[in-house]
Amino acid sequence: MPAEYLKSLLNPADTKIVLMVMDGLGGLPIQPGGLTELEAAHTPNMDRLATEGTLGQTNPIRPGITPGSGPAHLALFGYDPLVYDIGRGALESAGVGLSVGKGDVAARGNFCTLDAQGNIIDRRAGRIPTPEAIPVVESLKYITIPGIETEVRHVKEYRFAVVMRGDGLSPEIEDTDPQKTGVPPLPARAQEKSAEHTAELFNQWISAAHALLKSQLKANGLTLRGFATHPGLPSYQEVYGLNAACIASYPMYRGVSSLVGMQVIEFKGETPEDEFNAMASVWDQHDFFFIHIKKTDSKGEDGDFNGKVGVIESVDRALPRLLALQPDVLIITGDHSTPTRLRTHSWHPVPFLLWAPATARPDDQEKFGERSCAKGGLGTFSALDTMPLALAHALRLGKYGA
Amino acid sequence: MPAEYLKSLLNPADTKIVLMVMDGLGGLPIQPGGLTELEAAHTPNMDRLATEGTLGQTNPIRPGITPGSGPAHLALFGYDPLVYDIGRGALESAGVGLSVGKGDVAARGNFCTLDAQGNIIDRRAGRIPTPEAIPVVESLKYITIPGIETEVRHVKEYRFAVVMRGDGLSPEIEDTDPQKTGVPPLPARAQEKSAEHTAELFNQWISAAHALLKSQLKANGLTLRGFATHPGLPSYQEVYGLNAACIASYPMYRGVSSLVGMQVIEFKGETPEDEFNAMASVWDQHDFFFIHIKKTDSKGEDGDFNGKVGVIESVDRALPRLLALQPDVLIITGDHSTPTRLRTHSWHPVPFLLWAPATARPDDQEKFGERSCAKGGLGTFSALDTMPLALAHALRLGKYGA
Repeated sequence: MPAEYLKSLLNPADTKIVLMVMDGLGGLPIQPGGLTELEAAHTPNMDRLATEGTLGQTNPIRPGITPGSGPAHLALFGYDPLVYDIGRGALESAGVGLSVGKGDVAARGNFCTLDAQGNIIDRRAGRIPTPEAIPVVESLKYITIPGIETEVRHVKEYRFAVVMRGDGLSPEIEDTDPQKTGVPPLPARAQEKSAEHTAELFNQWISAAHALLKSQLKANGLTLRGFATHPGLPSYQEVYGLNAACIASYPMYRGVSSLVGMQVIEFKGETPEDEFNAMASVWDQHDFFFIHIKKTDSKGEDGDFNGKVGVIESVDRALPRLLALQPDVLIITGDHSTPTRLRTHSWHPVPFLLWAPATARPDDQEKFGERSCAKGGLGTFSALDTMPLALAHALRLGKYGA
Repeated sequence: MPAEYLKSLLNPADTKIVLMVMDGLGGLPIQPGGLTELEAAHTPNMDRLATEGTLGQTNPIRPGITPGSGPAHLALFGYDPLVYDIGRGALESAGVGLSVGKGDVAARGNFCTLDAQGNIIDRRAGRIPTPEAIPVVESLKYITIPGIETEVRHVKEYRFAVVMRGDGLSPEIEDTDPQKTGVPPLPARAQEKSAEHTAELFNQWISAAHALLKSQLKANGLTLRGFATHPGLPSYQEVYGLNAACIASYPMYRGVSSLVGMQVIEFKGETPEDEFNAMASVWDQHDFFFIHIKKTDSKGEDGDFNGKVGVIESVDRALPRLLALQPDVLIITGDHSTPTRLRTHSWHPVPFLLWAPATARPDDQEKFGERSCAKGGLGTFSALDTMPLALAHALRLGKYGA
């Protein structure tokens, strides 16, 4: 949880904060001595903001530690990921709009293909496309377990999420995915005595599901993993006094936002313009806006240097739309680094740009890039400090002590 | 102990890491506005590594805190020295190859010269040279105490180490060195009730030793200090999955390395070339190499600016021998600063160079020195982050969370 003392410092204000996260923003040069993706990108708007604002770089977890997207976003939002271990089941369910309340148990589901003996021959059911998977998920909605409520929702392709609601449930259950083929799915097994009843309920649900799936060609089996309950995160309203909105198109990021009490905005499209337009449409109703740009990370994982450069440039081109709204504080950063050279998330510090016309202290840096951020006025700091910095520059924090 | 979660992130890899510690590396200019020792040194090899790699600076304990060599090395190795208080007796004993197991009690011993009344007239027995001291230490090996095992080993000149092994021993015993002349050595006194039996055993041993030393001219008495037991540090293998080697010529550094489970390599000579050759001889058998260069610190404590510059330059000249082994990660740093101007350890941050051709993010710095390190891409960080950074750049750490 964000530091307890922060709450006591909150000042009412009508300032507006925008936190734009370009997923996996940090990079590496491909050639020794070369430029990173962000440095290579032509970003006249961000460079102007860098000149007027303050740069720095963050460590999402600790130096040297590569974060997953969930923990990395929690850190940016101010919740220590080493304290809050949020099950992926809860993130994914929340991300597709399945409410995961306190005491509920959520899990991620994968369809798989079983042979005649019930052994898995494809752990992802041939990656069946979304249109094929949706009616299969629909069929699972008819399963009823006495005494509890279950809700199922499709996520993407062969993936879905399931939530159980009822008394005395526990998420301490092991994954049923054996992580290999040639063997049947595992039963849901309790990790501790208090979870035995829940495991039994999930096994009833799985049996009923397998009976329903029998006639399917590809998706004739399923596995569940990431059993989790509501992590009990205090909300943005509670800890920061902020009425926050989330503009993101991917379920995971919508999920983690909704778990901290942000309102997830529905919108069409997935370009930066689409996201900025969505933000504009609710500008008057919120004072904090989290905008998530996914494709910087996707291009990084594809090893597509120029593609990642292109995504960054497309964000820069769309930026005037955002700036026209005149936010009091604009932070542009990433949740972690995803260098195209490594084709995966990495531990490298994350470039951080803070622009706040009324309050930011300028440094000597005039470009938004890894080398300049390393020399920026905010220094190298923990991503957990992002929200206090945002609140302070929005004049929303009072003095600590007299 | 290094963070528990680190263990769960370890990835097997065949990469090799070298951590070269130039003791007391950090310095200060002699003249206002002048260069530090490291900045004044001609170091073309390190400057090339600085250009290709990433710089930073560490705080060994906390900003403003001057560390001893033991705590400073523990921090570099990833064990918080504010948590692990390792008695110097255990370090020195381990350093000369005396095994200090759990429950054993080790102490550092000094020979001293007593007058006819038994009062100390020289606390270091005229600094008797090693060849004179060895037979005296040999004579102490004949002392037997019923029910326990004792082992004695010479360290250097007037210094030796003693270990007691047996049941119910406690290290909570006060030093017997009164820290002044004109008074007799103190008896071994227990700091708490549970140590009274051990103090009594050490007093028996001291009496027997004094009887044996009676005929000596200089070394006719002794004092004991730094009573300590095995600190219970988990090993490098356990916490990092590394099979580590220590290349160091001084007992203290060999001691702290062996307490974290490094294999201490025997070799002849003490120049940087000698150490790099020793490393080369065991290159295939280990994946982590700690190399310790002592003389930067010694020259610093002597107040010999040019001498310290010379030691740094001699390391730089020998560096191609090390680089020929093609380590995946090479870290060049110090354990603390020892500015010749202050002639002692200091609290100033320690220059840090990380070179890893496949994974390091370059910054704008092109020289290895205090000023450039302060602007480096790794920022200013705790020495405790050294090992996670080393493991990450060696691609030996997986992702935290999904």
